[in-house]
Order: sequence, then C-alpha cells, then structure tokens
Amino acid sequence: MSAYTYHLTCEYDGTFYHGWQRQPHCPTLQAAIEKAICSITNVKTVALTGAGRTDAGVHAAAQSAHFQLTKWMDPQRLLLGINAVLPQDISIKSMKLVDAAFHARYFAKQKTYCYFVYNGPIRSPLQRLTAWHLRAPLDIAKMRVAAKRLRGVHDFTSFTATQSDAQNHKVMLKTIRIVKKGEQIIFTLVASRFLRYMVRNIVGLLVEVGRGHRSATDITSILKAKDRQLAGPTAPPHGLCLMKVEY
Amino acid sequence: MSAYTYHLTCEYDGTFYHGWQRQPHCPTLQAAIEKAICSITNVKTVALTGAGRTDAGVHAAAQSAHFQLTKWMDPQRLLLGINAVLPQDISIKSMKLVDAAFHARYFAKQKTYCYFVYNGPIRSPLQRLTAWHLRAPLDIAKMRVAAKRLRGVHDFTSFTATQSDAQNHKVMLKTIRIVKKGEQIIFTLVASRFLRYMVRNIVGLLVEVGRGHRSATDITSILKAKDRQLAGPTAPPHGLCLMKVEY
Repeated sequence: MSAYTYHLTCEYDGTFYHGWQRQPHCPTLQAAIEKAICSITNVKTVALTGAGRTDAGVHAAAQSAHFQLTKWMDPQRLLLGINAVLPQDISIKSMKLVDAAFHARYFAKQKTYCYFVYNGPIRSPLQRLTAWHLRAPLDIAKMRVAAKRLRGVHDFTSFTATQSDAQNHKVMLKTIRIVKKGEQIIFTLVASRFLRYMVRNIVGLLVEVGRGHRSATDITSILKAKDRQLAGPTAPPHGLCLMKVEY
Repeated sequence: MSAYTYHLTCEYDGTFYHGWQRQPHCPTLQAAIEKAICSITNVKTVALTGAGRTDAGVHAAAQSAHFQLTKWMDPQRLLLGINAVLPQDISIKSMKLVDAAFHARYFAKQKTYCYFVYNGPIRSPLQRLTAWHLRAPLDIAKMRVAAKRLRGVHDFTSFTATQSDAQNHKVMLKTIRIVKKGEQIIFTLVASRFLRYMVRNIVGLLVEVGRGHRSATDITSILKAKDRQLAGPTAPPHGLCLMKVEY
C-alpha cells in the first residue's frame, strides 16, 4: 500500500499543554494535531512525528513534523481544514507533500531556539507566559564571554537531563548569541541537534554568570566534568521557543 | 483631614477583564487594583482614577492612575505589597507620592497608543491575544497616505462611538505612524486625548484603505461629514495597547 508523506510546520503557545509528546490523560500538542488530522482526513489514527519534543510549557514559532496518509489529499486544503478544527493556540503554518521517505527528525539539519528573559525589577504581565522574569540586572558582557566558551563542538553531558536517553552527548553548537533590547534579553542558539533541557540548562548557567554567581572560566571545567550537578539551575520552560527547523 | 495622593503606572493583559472601569459583577482592572490597594493599606474603600478607560480586552504597557490615602505609606513598599496580591496579569510598574491636587486624567498632557496587526495568511497562536489577525495583504504605502490626512487638528466625530459623552470632538492627533516588521504591522498614535473607540475606528478605516476598499481621499470627506456611519468598522480590542501617558 502506497503512502503519502506530509511535512508540516506549526506554531503553538505551549502554555496549556504537557509538551509535544502524546501522553495518556494529558493535553499534548502531538495529540491535539493528530486528532485534528484524523477528523479532517476521516482516518482512525495517524502518527505525527515531530522534529523534536518540546517540553511542557515550551512554545514554538515553527515546529516541524511529518505524518503519512494512504490516500492523497491536497496539502493546502488539508492545512485549512486542520486549522479550522485546531484550538486557537495551535496553527499549521505550512503543509507540503514530500518524498515518502522524509522523516522530520532524522532529516533535520539544524534547529534554532530562542530563550526570552524579561530583566526588569517588576514583572511584565504582557510577557508572563513567554519570558522568564529575572529581577536582578544581568551583566550581558559577562554572559557573552561565557557563551563564547560553549560555542563549537563539546560534550554537553553537564547540560543535559540526567535521565537523557541520547547515547552521545557531543553537539556542535554553531551559534549562541545574546541580544538585549530594553528590558528583554534574547538568547539564540543554533545546533544540528539539542539534548534534552540543553537550552534551558545553558541559559540557567549563563544567568548565574550574568548575576555574578559564576564566572566564564567555570564553563570550561563544567564542560570537562560531564556532570549535570556542576552546571546551573534549569531555566523555566515558558521562556523557550523553537524558532526554526532546517532541512 | 489631609490626604496623600499616589500616582501609579501599571501594565496589564486585558484579555480577562471587562475593561478598566469598575462595573458590578464583572472583573475589571480598576476593581482588581482597588481591591489590592485596600488589602495592603487596610482601608475599606479606595477610589482609583485612571488617565483613561481602556475597553474590554484592551491591554496597557503603562496605564496611569491616582488614588488618595489618609495615612502616609512608603510608595515603594506600597508598590511591592500591591504587586504581591495582584493577579499575574496586572502589575504596578511605578508608584510615587505626588502633589495632593494631582489628577491622572486632568493632568495628562499626551497619550500614546499602539495597535498591533498580524498580517499573514495563517493565524499566529503566539500573537492571538495581542494582535488583530488579517489574512489579506495590506498596502502599507496607501495606509500611510491615508493616515497623513488624519494628522493634525480635526473634529473626529466620525471616528468616535456614537454614544460618546465628550462634548467636543476636536482632537490634535500629533503622530500617526505605521511600521511593518515582517508580518506585524504596528500603528502608533499620539494625541493629547483620545475619544472613545477613536484608535480602533481609525485603524478599522485604515485597514479598509490597505485592502483597497477605500481610498485615502475618502478620509477628508469622512472627517468633514462628522458621521460615524461613514467611517470603517471598529478594529477589535485585543490589538490595542495603551503605551504611555505623559504629564
């Protein structure tokens, strides 16, 4: 039986979801989109494979995923139909028919994440769901020096979840950039792949550096130690947004 | 009895409120902040006067208001206390003791509003509560030409609520600027005062121009006619944000 593979990108506000991956008794992004696909295509079940699993509370401007159907459907009509039944906090931004062998995770060449910090003395209601509020002023220059030490190929064991299921923790971190716009600080990270909690653990440590609790030179020894205990706290999920997946 | 007048600025996500002004049986911003002030100052009632009334669903980055207390309290401690009891979608950003005669509305010299449009073919979940989604591409150049005709002193009767209680509809519109950043279009309006629904009615008409349904030359005749029926539809509230009140 031939199958048609569809590749979609989607945007979502992750606030009300228990992350990407389907779980029993919990609203998840995968389950919500699968349900919408089933309702439009009139199939009983469909398996949606994401480029990666975003954690509970994490957002996406452009997550990427694929699924297969046994019957052909026009991608644009499929997109409109699915969007019509999806809740308002999720939308399919693009949909195309791709080679049957396409795989959203295996074929991904590069991902971009942004982490948003609101660095002001008083909380910002308008950013409460999309930025980590930090009161104490952060030293951007210090954080940039520290970030530079993370750039390149490293074993990021110290920056991943202790229960990470990845066999190999070597990652090429191509870009790590810190931009300040008024009270907003944006961390942008680009890599071919990310380990679980990697961005949030890196931001957690950089914030420690920005506060003056850790120094840039600590970074090298933390990387070398390959010990999660040595790095900083994990930044909360709601400041994180998956911006782009490239193939 | 002497009274101490406090001037505060506050930020809020207006999504879950029936606007600024206190109303029976409805959550409003005024009522929420008054309740927080009472709980911290241990007074039975307090009257909070805003620089203006934002409508249901409208946001504020910096609304301005004043209230009076008969006993002196340190403004900074008052601010922290009130923020500690306010819901997460409201925060007091600044608080100071001012001249007893200060009045947040009468003393206001200038207000700045921004109206946010998300102009893309597919809805943006991350902007769904803070931007008006318009699918059809808007012609920015045409909207700018039309906006220019609104700048300056005009009788804005055609752009206010039919039930407006203002006696005089002459307003000096100092600035009306349209900026496009990717799929976001930001309308910025500055005036000494705004009539009810004025920003939303202006944006509603400019969008009609941007769509090609109305022309810039219509603006002059609409202003002259002083007839609400002639202008465009009212833009929805959630794209609007009160940015600044100047004294």
